[in-house]
Order: sequence, then structure tokens, then C-alpha cells
Amino acid sequence: MSKVFVFGHQNPDTDATASSYAWANLEREAFGRDAEAVLLGEPNEETAFALSYFGVEAPRVVTSAKAEGVNQVVLTDHNEFQQSIEDIREVEVLGVVDHHRVANFETANPLYMRLEPVGSASSIVYRAYKETGTPIPQAIAGLLLSGLISDTLLLKSPTTHESDHKVAEELAALAGVNLEEYGLALLKAGTNLASKSAEELIDIDAKTFELSGNAVRVAQVNTVDIAEVLERQDELESAISAAIVAEGYSDFVLMITDIVNSNSEILALGNNMDKVEAAFNFKLENNHAFLPGAVSRKKQVVPQLTESFEG
Amino acid sequence: MSKVFVFGHQNPDTDATASSYAWANLEREAFGRDAEAVLLGEPNEETAFALSYFGVEAPRVVTSAKAEGVNQVVLTDHNEFQQSIEDIREVEVLGVVDHHRVANFETANPLYMRLEPVGSASSIVYRAYKETGTPIPQAIAGLLLSGLISDTLLLKSPTTHESDHKVAEELAALAGVNLEEYGLALLKAGTNLASKSAEELIDIDAKTFELSGNAVRVAQVNTVDIAEVLERQDELESAISAAIVAEGYSDFVLMITDIVNSNSEILALGNNMDKVEAAFNFKLENNHAFLPGAVSRKKQVVPQLTESFEG
Repeated sequence: MSKVFVFGHQNPDTDATASSYAWANLEREAFGRDAEAVLLGEPNEETAFALSYFGVEAPRVVTSAKAEGVNQVVLTDHNEFQQSIEDIREVEVLGVVDHHRVANFETANPLYMRLEPVGSASSIVYRAYKETGTPIPQAIAGLLLSGLISDTLLLKSPTTHESDHKVAEELAALAGVNLEEYGLALLKAGTNLASKSAEELIDIDAKTFELSGNAVRVAQVNTVDIAEVLERQDELESAISAAIVAEGYSDFVLMITDIVNSNSEILALGNNMDKVEAAFNFKLENNHAFLPGAVSRKKQVVPQLTESFEG
Repeated sequence: MSKVFVFGHQNPDTDATASSYAWANLEREAFGRDAEAVLLGEPNEETAFALSYFGVEAPRVVTSAKAEGVNQVVLTDHNEFQQSIEDIREVEVLGVVDHHRVANFETANPLYMRLEPVGSASSIVYRAYKETGTPIPQAIAGLLLSGLISDTLLLKSPTTHESDHKVAEELAALAGVNLEEYGLALLKAGTNLASKSAEELIDIDAKTFELSGNAVRVAQVNTVDIAEVLERQDELESAISAAIVAEGYSDFVLMITDIVNSNSEILALGNNMDKVEAAFNFKLENNHAFLPGAVSRKKQVVPQLTESFEG
């Protein structure tokens, strides 16, 4: 039997890593497949914290399936091919476990596909363990909990599904941690921005969106102190301007998100600042402005920018 | 709360009808949605037999969701937009329950999507009833059983999944029918070809495939007597030739499938008969040839044609 790779998206975050690690175990235990979890990039600091906390060695990083002799894959926490392994079009996709929209995805054959509009891919993986009656090792429960906490900012993001609260409680019990205490420690582990250059910081979690012919880059960093990040404004603006020139972005919108109080400061540069201001009904001063209550790029920033740019 | 339409593909067959009817009931009972099952075309004779047998009134036929004031839909037994409701791109797809490949499908938002590589969409709907602990009315069990029997030719098609045998047994018990007896009666109800014109017959279940720049039409009819269908060869060839001219097909391949003995006769006309012969390693005589053991277009005809045309 040939090996199956299970992996999350490029630039892996905690949910991508946890869901793929746990799903590979489920493939082995419940479905009898020779599955291996791999990563499409090095884990970030938050993910490294979770792996270390639960004593799990990070999966190895690969960039190609076929180069490793693997022809079949399962995707977690993503489905769009441009976010996947580089040779995704040359292998067979056996399965997808995800909580995003579907786009830029197709297969030649029927497959297993399980998507739910919930807070994390980890929530779905947990449900699959329960449905198949597969025992959940403590470390895997801890990782899945970490994936859910990370993607929902401890269940505070509007992407949180009503069912996620119970999932978090059950996983915390299985993992043997206090949800609030562990959750805050995990999120804080991802806010160690001081060690990062401005160039690294604006690329930790960044996606490009095509809005009415404009390539708008929307990046997000998590912090416990917005002011501390804004102290580096000059340096950040230089990095942003350089990225705009190098990559041809029309605009760059950086969300500096306060994970404790659930607010964001927006730092924005580019050709369409009138549209950015209209999107959020605020006025940029010295290139930045406060967006109270906003923590989700997917729900609270991208749709608003889309509407404003298309208006 | 606004209404949600649940429907299978255009030119609905028994699995499309059964899965949508049963899923709409599940949406109402388990998820509390105001869901209505509708059809994208009139039920065929086999489907009409199943509906009548279990005392279910056929869902109404619609061609547009928005014209009915509906903005949200759930698709069963298909996902490709060109097989769906005409205004599919203008409504929100809340869910998909299917057992086909994924192609020509995308959404703006996260959704519920459940695909499994099993014999019928009805098999998946049945599993969802069990997982949610929703009681299955006898008539719905009967329809789901009919969908599975229809798509797998009574579990004989190579598209049958190992799990489908147990699903069929359980559904037959719930429906209160003998699997073999009811199954053969259902399939025979779809073989009443005498009442159909040749033009209707070659369009009962037909799909077009793009093979290396050729538009190859592959149609299938079920029968209990291949010879009886071949008696109409002249008439069928006239209809096929007319369709080739009118629609611009390069080739037309008609599978005349014996549902009792699980064989097919291939009747083929067009520009690439050498490729058709090479695909199946047979020789057409008087435009037709026997293909022992072949009952599945998806698994036993289209891939072979694809390889031959691309070779």
C-alpha cells in the first residue's frame, strides 16, 4: 500500500498543523491507510508552542509529493490549489477536511470531502473521531484544541460556530488543560513580535485579494499591546512600501489585532486609501486608524473591502 | 426564516430525486431549516415507480430559485454548476451532498459539503440520518433504497462501495421490502423503452465529454432484452445521426445495458470509430459490438474512451 500525505495549507498555522496531524492519525487508526502528516512550511511560534506543550515532534516539511514517491494526498484546512502543495495537480486528492469557501479546486474522481462552516478545521476532525469511535490521544486533543483556539482567538472571533464552544470544552477536558489559561498562553506565544524584522512581521499571515482589478494585500499580526507594535510604524511602513513595489500590490492593509481586548488597529498604505476609509467608515490619521471589535480578516475586513472596492 | 431549496441535478434520476427529498426532510427535522425538495425536471419512469410505490407525491418542478423567492440552496447528487439550477451563480449554496468528482464549482462563503466516493448520494444521506439520530420514515427509507439500487444497478455496478451492501440491507428492512425483488421491479420500471421514440431513447441518460477536442456523446439505456432494443437499430441510427449533425458531436456512443445479466451492447457512430474500437479492444460490426460485464459509464466506458482518444 502506498503512502498518503496529509497536510494543511502553505505558510502553516496552528489549525492547519493540528488538523493534518490529527487527521493522519485518524486515517491510520480508523481507515487503515498508511498516512503521514507533513507540513508545507516551518511551524510559526504559536504552533511550535502547542507542539512543544503537548510533546509532539513537528512533522517534516515537504514541498512536493511526487518527489517523496507519494501520489495520493488529503488536504486539511484548505482546498484552493494555489494554497496547496506545488504538485497538487499531479497527484490524486483522496480527501479534503476544511472550513473555508471552495474555489480553484477540482478532481478527476469522486473523493471524500467534508466541509463545515465552523471555526476551525480541527473542530471537524474532532467530530470525525467521535463519529468513528476512534480514541483521541491526549496530545492530539491538545493540538486540536490549539487549532480551534488559534483560528477563533479563543472563541471570540465572529467565525466561531455555536457548536465550537462545546468542542472546546470537551477537547480541554481530554487534553487536561484549563481552556482560558492555556488559550491565552497559546495566543501570547504567537505575539512575540519583537524578535521579528518588519519584513517578517508583515508576512506572518498575509493573503492577496483581487478587488476590482486591484491586488490588495491584507496581513494580520496578533499582539497583546497595539501601542508596542505601532512604535515600529516607520520600520513597518518601509517594509510595506517595499513590498508594494516588489509585488505590485495596489494597497497593503495591516491588521494589528489585540487578542486580549478583541480590537484591531489598521495600518494602511497604497493607491486606494479613500476606498479603505469608506470600507470601515473611519479616517486614517498618519496612515492608521482604530477598528473596534474587529478580529477576523475573513468576516470583518475582506468583505468590507470587497464591497467598497466594487462600489 | 426564508426557504431553502434542495434539489438534485437536471434531468433527474432516482438517486437525485431520493437524495434531495430525504435531505430536505433531514434539514427540517434535524437542522430546523424551512427546506423544500424540488426537481429540475420531470421524474423518469423508474423514479415515478419508486415515488408511487412508497406513496410519495413527486416534488414540484422548478427552473429558477430566485423566481420562487429563494436565495439559498442545497445540492444533492451533483456539484457541477452546468448540471444545476439555471440561476445557481446568483444564489448561496449552503450545502452539497454528493458522490461525484468536484469540478466547475465554487462558493463565496464557507459551506457544508459532504462527499463520499460511494455508490449513491442516497447512501450518504442515510448515514447522515443515522449520525444525527433522526428517525427515517418508511417512505424515505424506500426512496433512499431506490436511489442506491438505481445508481448501482442493484449493487452490481463497479461504482458500488463495500459499505453500500449493508446500507441496502438496512434500508430494505426499514422500507419493508425484499431487496432483490423490489430492486429488479424498480430497474425494470425504467426499461419500458417501447413507449419512447428513438429521439427520446438516446436522450434518457446522456452526457457529453470533451475528449482531445472531440465532443463525444455517451448515452445509456437500461433493458432486460438487448435484442429488443437492437430491433430498432435503423431508427436509433437515424436519431443518432441527426443529433450528431444538430449538436456537433464528433461521436455518439450508446450503451444498451442488460440489467439482469450485467452486460452492454455498444452502438456507435461518428468520426473516430477506430478510437472507440481501440478503447474496448473490440470490432464494431454493423456499428455495434458486445461489451461483457460493462454496466457503468463512469467507470467502464468514459475512462477507456478518454485514454484511447488521448493516446
